[in-house]
Amino acid sequence: MPHTPVSVLGLGLMGTALASALIKAGHPTTVWNRTESKTGPLVAQGAVPAATARDAITAGGPVIVCLTTNDNVRALLAPEAEALAGRTLVNLTNGTPGQARELADWAAAHGITYLDGGIMAVPQMIATPGAYILYSGADEAAFEAHRPTLAALADTKWVGKDPGLAALYDISLLTGMNGMALGVAQAFALIGSAGIPARDFAPLLRDWVVAMTDGLVPGAAEAIDTDRHVTDVSNLAMNREAHPNFLRTYADQGLRTDLFEPLQDLLDRAVAEGHGADGFSRLSTLLKQD
Amino acid sequence: MPHTPVSVLGLGLMGTALASALIKAGHPTTVWNRTESKTGPLVAQGAVPAATARDAITAGGPVIVCLTTNDNVRALLAPEAEALAGRTLVNLTNGTPGQARELADWAAAHGITYLDGGIMAVPQMIATPGAYILYSGADEAAFEAHRPTLAALADTKWVGKDPGLAALYDISLLTGMNGMALGVAQAFALIGSAGIPARDFAPLLRDWVVAMTDGLVPGAAEAIDTDRHVTDVSNLAMNREAHPNFLRTYADQGLRTDLFEPLQDLLDRAVAEGHGADGFSRLSTLLKQD
Ligand SMILES: NC(=O)c1ccc[n+]([C@@H]2O[C@H](COP(=O)([O-])OP(=O)(O)OC[C@H]3O[C@@H](n4cnc5c(N)ncnc54)[C@H](OP(=O)(O)O)[C@@H]3O)[C@@H](O)[C@H]2O)c1
Ligand SMILES: NC(=O)c1ccc[n+]([C@@H]2O[C@H](COP(=O)([O-])OP(=O)(O)OC[C@H]3O[C@@H](n4cnc5c(N)ncnc54)[C@H](OP(=O)(O)O)[C@@H]3O)[C@@H](O)[C@H]2O)c1
Repeated sequence: MPHTPVSVLGLGLMGTALASALIKAGHPTTVWNRTESKTGPLVAQGAVPAATARDAITAGGPVIVCLTTNDNVRALLAPEAEALAGRTLVNLTNGTPGQARELADWAAAHGITYLDGGIMAVPQMIATPGAYILYSGADEAAFEAHRPTLAALADTKWVGKDPGLAALYDISLLTGMNGMALGVAQAFALIGSAGIPARDFAPLLRDWVVAMTDGLVPGAAEAIDTDRHVTDVSNLAMNREAHPNFLRTYADQGLRTDLFEPLQDLLDRAVAEGHGADGFSRLSTLLKQD
Repeated sequence: MPHTPVSVLGLGLMGTALASALIKAGHPTTVWNRTESKTGPLVAQGAVPAATARDAITAGGPVIVCLTTNDNVRALLAPEAEALAGRTLVNLTNGTPGQARELADWAAAHGITYLDGGIMAVPQMIATPGAYILYSGADEAAFEAHRPTLAALADTKWVGKDPGLAALYDISLLTGMNGMALGVAQAFALIGSAGIPARDFAPLLRDWVVAMTDGLVPGAAEAIDTDRHVTDVSNLAMNREAHPNFLRTYADQGLRTDLFEPLQDLLDRAVAEGHGADGFSRLSTLLKQD
């Protein structure tokens, strides 16, 4: 069976990795990027460069788009509705659930099949084990039809017919990562303030954060689903009293405290609302807007 | 060889786990807690209850203290300087490097050998593989002498003669964990806002945060030590443009945005200062106070 042709619009760090994976999997791959020079390495791998986005769209097969934001996607594709009509648009640009639903509505109004995706991988992980892409969209059959092609990028994970769901999962997972990244940044800054090389500290930090993630996440999920947060691990009353020491240490070592001041507010609020004996899982219930 | 006697002051979640591990390892263990009832389960395991903190201190062997904060430690031990003279005080209470140095000075002035420790474990991990306690203090020989006893609690990790170092490592590692915990709390709140059970989402969240910690920490350490932050993974310019989507999604789903607003500030600042092509490692260099 010949491989389905595919087009990729947007050849940043991620789009380049996506196009490269498709080429390696044997798909005739047409590529386009606003800054044309970025097509070079992919053409060397066998991609066909398109002079315009429209040429890439009409080359045949599903159209994968991966730009910085969905505003960029709208700006690029709004004039191309006619060229896209009857085709499948797979949007792998990071965005909000609301943006995905708006794009899905726009696509439906123009006879375009729309699939929204959230990439759970950095570019280096594309087409390697463990990487996956979350998909959602009104037309599950279209997803199933394109699944073999999309599987060249990463494992595919269908999350539902609400086009916003892939973005919701994606933003939720990336939020977990962003929190970790903030903690890691502050931790390296702190250890560096004492002149200790980051390299010496990294294995301890890696192991500790991984062990705590392993320890926290499943139990917190159970506590949230059952609404039973009392802990025998580490309670919020103790953490609330201990946290000023963290902010003090940052300040003593010449660091900014602003990344972690909201945690103090949250711990203070948790205890004021009577949740001192609860564990960290309680915090997620306190994040609703008042 | 008979086992060294030990005393434990403070029988909260952690102090109870510490005392229990000492008893199980065969050490004659004297315990004291402000709220006396907490001695019950340990006495049932073989501990000797002390009527007063002074009685516990003078029972013989090193004195381990684990209270909520170092302010509590000072309040408890200030009147006991004479009873502590000539003994070794092992303070496993979480605190700042500055507090550890002050307590070390106070101890030195009263002829007390002072070791400061940071526990890298939750109570359930005490005396299990992977758990360790960081130690620092002016008298490394005293640490070596007590090491076999302290090893009953968790692996021992000596970090240096500056008494503040254990606290610095401890706060740094816990900061990494706190960031992760904030991210996890916000992620669960977000997924919950769409009515998705936390239990269904937890395995994805756990695996993603672990994979990203593995991916981020060693490379960031290398970037920090060499001061070369340019990335081919995920750059700050892209993340800065994408992050408003995160804040927007939180608000759209009825959640607070305050935990992650400081990240937007930091990303904006990074790009404004010309670091758009750099990776997350750059952020840790931007956390110094202006
Ligand atoms: N990198 C990662 O680790 C990662 C992981 C998961 C998801 N993602 C998502 O993947 C998407 C792309 O990320 P990236 O890392 O590839 O970013 P990047 O390297 O900064 O590339 C951005 C791409 O968007 C294009 N672009 C921006 N504005 C445009 C416009 N108005 N019209 C046409 N093209 C425009 C750029 O074209 P020029 O070359 O002309 O500037 C470039 O091809 C983002 O939504 C990101 O959240 C990235
Ligand atoms: N739990 C963890 O996961 C964990 C992990 C690593 C480190 N730690 C550290 O271990 C320390 C204790 O934590 P924890 O989880 O055991 O907290 P906890 O369960 O809240 O226990 C706090 C202990 O401190 C005592 N205390 C507080 N104020 C006191 C005072 N003024 N005088 C005398 N005793 C006082 C309490 O006595 P009462 O019973 O009379 O209130 C209780 O024994 C903290 O510094 C914490 O940061 C905890």
